[in-house]
Amino acid sequence: MGEFDFIARHFRPLAGAGAMELRNDGAVMNLPAGEELVLSSDTMVEGLHFLPDDPAKTIAQKLLRCNLSDLAAMGSRPRGYMLNVSVPPNRHYDESWFTDFAAGLAEDQKKFEFHLLGGDTTGSPSPLVLGVTILGSVRQGEALRRDGSHEGDGVWVTGSLGRAALGLQARLGQLKDEDGSLTLAYRVPTPRIGLSLYGIVSAAMDISDGLIQDCGHLAEESGVAITLYEDKVPLSPAVRQHLSHHKERILLGGDDYELLVTCPPEKEAALQAHCATHAVPITRIGEVSKGAGVRMLNHAGKPLHFSRIGWQHF
Amino acid sequence: MGEFDFIARHFRPLAGAGAMELRNDGAVMNLPAGEELVLSSDTMVEGLHFLPDDPAKTIAQKLLRCNLSDLAAMGSRPRGYMLNVSVPPNRHYDESWFTDFAAGLAEDQKKFEFHLLGGDTTGSPSPLVLGVTILGSVRQGEALRRDGSHEGDGVWVTGSLGRAALGLQARLGQLKDEDGSLTLAYRVPTPRIGLSLYGIVSAAMDISDGLIQDCGHLAEESGVAITLYEDKVPLSPAVRQHLSHHKERILLGGDDYELLVTCPPEKEAALQAHCATHAVPITRIGEVSKGAGVRMLNHAGKPLHFSRIGWQHF
Repeated sequence: MGEFDFIARHFRPLAGAGAMELRNDGAVMNLPAGEELVLSSDTMVEGLHFLPDDPAKTIAQKLLRCNLSDLAAMGSRPRGYMLNVSVPPNRHYDESWFTDFAAGLAEDQKKFEFHLLGGDTTGSPSPLVLGVTILGSVRQGEALRRDGSHEGDGVWVTGSLGRAALGLQARLGQLKDEDGSLTLAYRVPTPRIGLSLYGIVSAAMDISDGLIQDCGHLAEESGVAITLYEDKVPLSPAVRQHLSHHKERILLGGDDYELLVTCPPEKEAALQAHCATHAVPITRIGEVSKGAGVRMLNHAGKPLHFSRIGWQHF
Repeated sequence: MGEFDFIARHFRPLAGAGAMELRNDGAVMNLPAGEELVLSSDTMVEGLHFLPDDPAKTIAQKLLRCNLSDLAAMGSRPRGYMLNVSVPPNRHYDESWFTDFAAGLAEDQKKFEFHLLGGDTTGSPSPLVLGVTILGSVRQGEALRRDGSHEGDGVWVTGSLGRAALGLQARLGQLKDEDGSLTLAYRVPTPRIGLSLYGIVSAAMDISDGLIQDCGHLAEESGVAITLYEDKVPLSPAVRQHLSHHKERILLGGDDYELLVTCPPEKEAALQAHCATHAVPITRIGEVSKGAGVRMLNHAGKPLHFSRIGWQHF
């Protein structure tokens, strides 16, 4: 198949304003007055970030949603994205695969109200490599950051943790996923787009590399210590039943795409009210103090020890 | 090596305003009032777009310059870029390789006055995959496009063609590159950043896939026919000496990253004067007429026939 026909068939229908039907060397995009651009980028590599037999549609959704989650972490709404696809000469990734892939992109473009701006399609000698650079906007100066946590702030997390990490184990045949909810969480995360936490939280990020490691980033960037309480970590019933055998996986596994925020005590009521309005569960799991590093205490107040800290990219 | 240390060592020194030292989930960027964003993206895959033993520094420069050329084609100046790197577990791509790679990025950031905003680093099971999404800006509505060519316009090209295509042959040992200029053109193209052709040219694009194929894109998007004259195509002396044996390679080979523009007759003097001011050679190589498609005529007015039309991406 030729590159140009391939792009026209699969990706042109996804192109929105500014993409100029993918017919130029690039795209244009306008920002509303008083807003600034927010940018993030994530690459997914076959065999590392998805399995070749994951459905094309959910691979597309995960690709967009990992990026959407970064925007959510910065308090931004999505506006558009650039898509990079490097396709191996492998019959598995055929017309029908890309039809499903584009359908997944289309569905999430509609759900999250943004569109394709442009990108690049190349060959690849072996794995399928998929990249998205996402563009969002926020009001000037209102992007959430990781470096604002202060002593006395509470540490909060949206949703529940560990489902995606166990979902991957289920995909690998290591664990039984009775209702399929774990596998679904691994394949199709829920980015927390739509919350407006500027002025409420002191710092924010998304949990992609595991709770402990990502708390470590937040603590480091803010120059503080974080204490977490094991029995406060929100777990779904499907996850809780695996807690005794898979504790590290649940706490360190990553791929949660939930928001991790710190919040001063006087804003906690506002945080809970705002999340309730948006039907996003949020739970206080720890607190910020002077010092450095992250520790997690069990129900007896003893620190947990882990064999690793989280997902290592390479 | 850990991802976070790796990023800190090699890429943090390249980060500019808005990148927030690569310490957050993403970056922010502002646009001057009255400007709109221009976006383009290019991926380079080891073995397809560069050779593993090309110098890391020139691989970095080519990666940026291919993207810069897309901005130049749209009449935009660069502001920043997102970098995606997927690194194989291959000793060849070691610390020293990435030190040189980052030095190449730094040199061109300085030359072209833009900076790193953010990106993503992952593993890769086999090839090194490098991606850049570049961000530039133009005054609202002044981005150059491919769809404005009209009957009677001249077809013009900057610089000279074929050096990079022959440079690749030299790299592969198929051709002698006496002064190294062909290899250099292949490794380090010259994006035509800095020209201001809005209001002068009727359409523009860059030549990345070969003159004939890219003229075909321009003709198709503008709904016109293009006639080119073989003996008008600008060739450097090093290229001209290979013309008899490598004509197709020179005319179809791609990787030139020169600008291809069409210009109404009444603006030709302005085009030439503007390019002269910026010391960019520009040559009239053909004309636009009613109809469709591209043909190239030889010195006797006979159409040339080619065995292929240009670079196919996959």
